[in-house]
Amino acid sequence: MFANSGQESATAPQANRMSIVLFSGTADKLMAASIMATGATAMGMDVELFLTTWGVMAFRKGDYRTNTRVSADYAEFGGIMQEQMAAKKATSWMENLEGAREIGHVHIAACSHTMELFNIKVEDLEPIVDEVIGVAAFIEQARNSAISLFI
Amino acid sequence: MFANSGQESATAPQANRMSIVLFSGTADKLMAASIMATGATAMGMDVELFLTTWGVMAFRKGDYRTNTRVSADYAEFGGIMQEQMAAKKATSWMENLEGAREIGHVHIAACSHTMELFNIKVEDLEPIVDEVIGVAAFIEQARNSAISLFI
Amino acid sequence: MFANSGQESATAPQANRMSIVLFSGTADKLMAASIMATGATAMGMDVELFLTTWGVMAFRKGDYRTNTRVSADYAEFGGIMQEQMAAKKATSWMENLEGAREIGHVHIAACSHTMELFNIKVEDLEPIVDEVIGVAAFIEQARNSAISLFI
Repeated sequence: MFANSGQESATAPQANRMSIVLFSGTADKLMAASIMATGATAMGMDVELFLTTWGVMAFRKGDYRTNTRVSADYAEFGGIMQEQMAAKKATSWMENLEGAREIGHVHIAACSHTMELFNIKVEDLEPIVDEVIGVAAFIEQARNSAISLFI
Repeated sequence: MFANSGQESATAPQANRMSIVLFSGTADKLMAASIMATGATAMGMDVELFLTTWGVMAFRKGDYRTNTRVSADYAEFGGIMQEQMAAKKATSWMENLEGAREIGHVHIAACSHTMELFNIKVEDLEPIVDEVIGVAAFIEQARNSAISLFI
Repeated sequence: MFANSGQESATAPQANRMSIVLFSGTADKLMAASIMATGATAMGMDVELFLTTWGVMAFRKGDYRTNTRVSADYAEFGGIMQEQMAAKKATSWMENLEGAREIGHVHIAACSHTMELFNIKVEDLEPIVDEVIGVAAFIEQARNSAISLFI
């Protein structure tokens, strides 16, 4: 059954979908992911987010309210980034994702493997997370996407 | 209008283009991006680079001359990498991008959202940057690309 | 010749393949890459891994046995991750890659540019690495892939 569905998708047209593996949990990368999702829905695309590893951690209940972590590569700019965002009343990445969902289709799934590894249950996650899935289910979405990204 | 263009691209063949979101600004990732761009143009592909967040910072005027930042994950190898590059007279990532542009089409755009957030103006950037665009314009390129990467 | 092959692939259907540029060498990202490879082969897809920069370092002989490096962004969780993996007898990323290769096609190539830069020879790498190739050869695979990721 797997082999059949594989052969079908090899010749299927790419669906109008953007699939993102959200591995990172830093505020700067979450912001980038949320802006990509906003832009994609504005262009009429469906968005599939697959949270894994630190991406799952960042969607634990309430975590986004206090997450000021930025990429360690640019740790010294973290404070400036937060200040600028506050000064310009920029929307948070969580608000962006909620906004994108109002415009179009944004499906958010958490990786079952990560959930087991870190003993996280679905009720520990923000309600914006739709479900817990395995990697194969995500791959099925990604291979029928016009854009796939690992963030 | 957005919905229409979305439906069209869903069935359009993938263009012979590589689209890269360049989020990172470390010398090692910039080098990787420039080598991907070089390889793509050598294969006859068009290259679309979208600079965002730390990627914009790395294209501020003159910044590339002093940027020895490497991924924090491998910070202790930064010195060895610089030494090896000097010893082997390896071309810099900026030279690679300039070389790729001589071979083929390499378009470099900076993210308007990042420019506003960090108060950066287009005249603050290296002349190799062609323009400032919003994320939706980049998404339109990316969804009609054979390869899309987030670096 | 390059231009011709470029034009052909622009209209070719996307092959049932997942191509990954494995730039990172941290255990958490290697684990993510290996799980993506496992999921893809389970879905009947071919997998093409292109090791570059720190990704090559991580495949030096024996390195995987002692590599406990995690993303610097989440360095403080490295210990917990290792403990949980040991407690749950989770398979290592190398075991996952070996397992994926038993299920389907997993081809692993190292970037010739990185090999030269760091004076690494093919006999310095784990035997799971199939060959050393240039970036253009990888691009040819990636542009005929349903999914391309940079990890």
